[in-house]
Amino acid sequence: MAKPLQVEVYNPNGKYRVVSTKPMPGTRWINLLIEQDCRLEICTQKKTILSVEDIISLIGDKCDGVIGQLTEDWGEKLFSALSRAGGKAFSNMAVGYNNVDVNAANKYGVAVGNTPGVLTETTAELAASLSLSAARRIVEADEFMRAGLYDGWLPHLFVGNLLKGQTVGVIGAGRIGSAYARMMVISRCLVHLTYGQFLKANGEQPVTWKRASTMEEVLREADVGPVIDEVALVEHLKVNPMFRVGLDVFEDEPYMKPGLAEMKNAIVVPHIASASKWTREGMATLAALNVLGKIKGYPIWSDPNHVEPFLNENATPPAACPSIVNAKALGLPVSKL
Amino acid sequence: MAKPLQVEVYNPNGKYRVVSTKPMPGTRWINLLIEQDCRLEICTQKKTILSVEDIISLIGDKCDGVIGQLTEDWGEKLFSALSRAGGKAFSNMAVGYNNVDVNAANKYGVAVGNTPGVLTETTAELAASLSLSAARRIVEADEFMRAGLYDGWLPHLFVGNLLKGQTVGVIGAGRIGSAYARMMVISRCLVHLTYGQFLKANGEQPVTWKRASTMEEVLREADVGPVIDEVALVEHLKVNPMFRVGLDVFEDEPYMKPGLAEMKNAIVVPHIASASKWTREGMATLAALNVLGKIKGYPIWSDPNHVEPFLNENATPPAACPSIVNAKALGLPVSKL
Repeated sequence: MAKPLQVEVYNPNGKYRVVSTKPMPGTRWINLLIEQDCRLEICTQKKTILSVEDIISLIGDKCDGVIGQLTEDWGEKLFSALSRAGGKAFSNMAVGYNNVDVNAANKYGVAVGNTPGVLTETTAELAASLSLSAARRIVEADEFMRAGLYDGWLPHLFVGNLLKGQTVGVIGAGRIGSAYARMMVISRCLVHLTYGQFLKANGEQPVTWKRASTMEEVLREADVGPVIDEVALVEHLKVNPMFRVGLDVFEDEPYMKPGLAEMKNAIVVPHIASASKWTREGMATLAALNVLGKIKGYPIWSDPNHVEPFLNENATPPAACPSIVNAKALGLPVSKL
Repeated sequence: MAKPLQVEVYNPNGKYRVVSTKPMPGTRWINLLIEQDCRLEICTQKKTILSVEDIISLIGDKCDGVIGQLTEDWGEKLFSALSRAGGKAFSNMAVGYNNVDVNAANKYGVAVGNTPGVLTETTAELAASLSLSAARRIVEADEFMRAGLYDGWLPHLFVGNLLKGQTVGVIGAGRIGSAYARMMVISRCLVHLTYGQFLKANGEQPVTWKRASTMEEVLREADVGPVIDEVALVEHLKVNPMFRVGLDVFEDEPYMKPGLAEMKNAIVVPHIASASKWTREGMATLAALNVLGKIKGYPIWSDPNHVEPFLNENATPPAACPSIVNAKALGLPVSKL
């Protein structure tokens, strides 16, 4: 038999058993669960991505709800295991849920939560940060300085680009793209906002353009996954040393295509767009409240993008699930709060 | 006898001999000089900082003007050498001129040029870039990604800080500080602008606060040199891993105090605040036109902070020196253009 995964247990005598597959930032989400009579088990195993078998062993014989991660494969096997253990509540700690087979969840009557409403500004600020860092060559300049290579001011040292007066393009100008655009406009950049329909009407084609058939498809694909032809990008960076790029997601994540890691004119960060303390603690809180709300039989919050009442640390959160993506399929009632 | 320094010569038969102690970005400044009958010699020696003796050898027996750098020691020795060679024109390729002994220049009747009017936005954008990069840990995140350590999304990976709603302090809110403040305000930060007088009235003391006696002293010291107690900063960074800093200048430049290069929560760049292509090419043009204008006997431009007419690449620049800091002492006339 495999060695059991390490877990940390909070409130061992709680009535409802809730599992979090990962430690999450902050402590409020933990307190909210244990105050409502949950026994919380947090998997602390040093393993970046848990397998389906790992999670089945965490679920065990009796489990009321699970908070999971977008790196995990939530399909038939896990939802049937959760259902057998008596659980009807799951939440991703993420807005996206392309790691979740929602049809399988529907089949077993398991609610699938996600965490919109707290990522917009944090993600837009990362985009602005990458734009400015790439323009001013911050990473290579820091490496040079840190290595002790700086021996005096020189007219040609790390000359980058002024953004003022330049044109910025935003492909996919939803909430995040628009927030980013606002930041760049005020730096006196001209901004071209492009929606899918705008592109189509103008006959322009982004590299991997295709028409999405539903808004859900757009949401599932937005910003994540193979938007850029990374092999072509590496070639372009090699041939055009003055072309600079900042990337937060990758075609074969967590891997980069060969050559990208060697390019000085690329800044590459490991999918940290939502990695601010405020956002990540908010995501943890919303994921915990999705699971708790389903366990308690609470209705669904009417607007998942306006979740401020759940985030106020000085008040009891509303008796509702902040965001359940398959609420309609499961016939869950909408909150009147 | 020492080996002569390497130089590149343009327009060898030009009437006026002008020396640039360093190659500078762009080509317009070169063309402007050779079109006006200058023989231009650019020192291309691979030596970051030229010594006084190096520059004396570049000046030689006959020299009409020199474009120098803020890393060079322009005092009695160099101005007397330039004067002996028949030269009355010098320009720093910089706004600051604390490397220049203006009294010595006055004594030999040498005009001292500088290059304001093109640095504000580029410098403010670097400050914004450092603020955002530090908040979102761009350099350490890039190093982690590039080293191949990323093996999947994790809730705690490189969690930084959202700037929206935070308070930003700007000590020294002149042109650059105000431009930076405008950028940060629009990211929905609150900004506290502080002038020296404001600080004094409130009884607050910046670390190395002292009252400047003249505006010239403020200009010479602004942003450069020992503003921060770097040893204390290193201690603070060690004790407070969540405290983050971005630095472009250093107490003992080009050196950092021990320990700073090892701090993950510091971003350090080698004095690149003005390092955008537009600004550096503009600085080169203004420095060349200061020297050319003095050689030609042109008057002094009336507002050194509004130099757009000199930067228009499609027009002949005005017949004036863009900015001569000792114009009054030398009794040079002001342009009526």
